[in-house]
Amino acid sequence: MSDDLRRVTELDRLIHEPARLLIVTILSSVESADFLFLQRETGLTKGNLSAHLSKLEDAGYVKIQKTFKGKLPLTICKLTAAGTKAITQYRQQLQSFMEMTTQ
Amino acid sequence: MSDDLRRVTELDRLIHEPARLLIVTILSSVESADFLFLQRETGLTKGNLSAHLSKLEDAGYVKIQKTFKGKLPLTICKLTAAGTKAITQYRQQLQSFMEMTTQ
Repeated sequence: MSDDLRRVTELDRLIHEPARLLIVTILSSVESADFLFLQRETGLTKGNLSAHLSKLEDAGYVKIQKTFKGKLPLTICKLTAAGTKAITQYRQQLQSFMEMTTQ
Repeated sequence: MSDDLRRVTELDRLIHEPARLLIVTILSSVESADFLFLQRETGLTKGNLSAHLSKLEDAGYVKIQKTFKGKLPLTICKLTAAGTKAITQYRQQLQSFMEMTTQ
């Protein structure tokens, strides 16, 4: 068994969580996204999405700006450079694991 | 956004956990494996490996047989048909997600 295979246990757990993987993947494909867009795209509840975004913000992976569009509150989410690096590395590690274990 | 992308949130959490993904992947490449072999290959502690194997056994993914080799206890672990089906489906779902989101 290659030591490389073991590296799967070193995957970034913050991104590995499926709902967060979905959020980060969506954010990595757009310049920025507002909360309602993310909620619609992910199908997550407001509470769940909010909790996951907070964790990603705490890790420095997502920047969240609360602003207004006219009188309506608008929450803009954007992947940071650290977040982009994290999802890129995560994908590389996962892809590498999948390729090593193709059966 | 394709609804297919959302399916990442339906990934089998039991297998998605990295240590268990490693265990199940190893077991899927051999007929059966004893506990010490798995411990060496995964690099997990005895307690961690034991806990993960119990969860996999409870889910019906792994069959565990405690036996003896001479006077030495031997714990043989084997992926069940359900376990094989689960890891195959997990890999397909993950591969599909990775392909859909290639950037």
